[in-house]
Amino acid sequence: MQVEPIAQGQLSNRRSKQDLRLWLRMLACTTLIERDVRSLLRRSFDVTLPRFDFLAVLYRADGNLTMSELSHRLMVSNGNVTGLAERLESEGLISRTPWPRDRRTVHVAISSKGRKEFERIAVMHEQWVAEMFSGLDDEEVDDLWRLLGRLKDTLE
Amino acid sequence: MQVEPIAQGQLSNRRSKQDLRLWLRMLACTTLIERDVRSLLRRSFDVTLPRFDFLAVLYRADGNLTMSELSHRLMVSNGNVTGLAERLESEGLISRTPWPRDRRTVHVAISSKGRKEFERIAVMHEQWVAEMFSGLDDEEVDDLWRLLGRLKDTLE
Repeated sequence: MQVEPIAQGQLSNRRSKQDLRLWLRMLACTTLIERDVRSLLRRSFDVTLPRFDFLAVLYRADGNLTMSELSHRLMVSNGNVTGLAERLESEGLISRTPWPRDRRTVHVAISSKGRKEFERIAVMHEQWVAEMFSGLDDEEVDDLWRLLGRLKDTLE
Repeated sequence: MQVEPIAQGQLSNRRSKQDLRLWLRMLACTTLIERDVRSLLRRSFDVTLPRFDFLAVLYRADGNLTMSELSHRLMVSNGNVTGLAERLESEGLISRTPWPRDRRTVHVAISSKGRKEFERIAVMHEQWVAEMFSGLDDEEVDDLWRLLGRLKDTLE
């Protein structure tokens, strides 16, 4: 039985196998962290990850975002955020305002209640993430930051 | 207006802010790559990412997996893979066999048709990933591999 992945691919070479191995490891790390964060958010604050991410993006934005900008930063489709935006507005955590010059464009901003809600969770979220990266020393964190920056530049 | 994330968190410190920044960059890179892979799979092979991942895990497994092992390796819930398993079996790409000593345990294996189907796609998938990592030199790929290995050890 042939077990090695795509050993028969003539196009494959040693470097592309290393890239693939690297990508699978990166995906595994991200999936593990995301799964833990999702579960901690639910258990500690009864909050879903999309809801936390939504507030985080608005919190970090300086002022209003359009729904399209928000979707782009969340890297999800416009449709996925509309229902969530409605719920967050009804809870007074965000405001939605149609732009006077084009009422199809809706501006979204976090309210002061939303800021407080986010901050309460974000303090713990930061601690969880720090715990997950605690196996790396300061220099390794810097190196990883720099290398992922190089990767990000290629991707964008 | 206060823009810096959770500057008011007394528990926060410089290192945990760097960890958070690192995690957000890692998440962004992974999301970008995954989005591109998803779109390339669809456009080039009319294949979804979960379907490709399902075949990949079985291909790399040496022989049979139980549905639970498969779910664990895919890092998704058992329920999510059952429907997909049924479809792949009906297309002759995998086989499912109840274990004689406990028929609730189902063993899954990739068929030779499934292996061919996977290999055809995997050759291109490897090229796409290599392209996405092409901005890094060999040493940077090795460093990133090693650092993510250190992170993975902490997470597991």
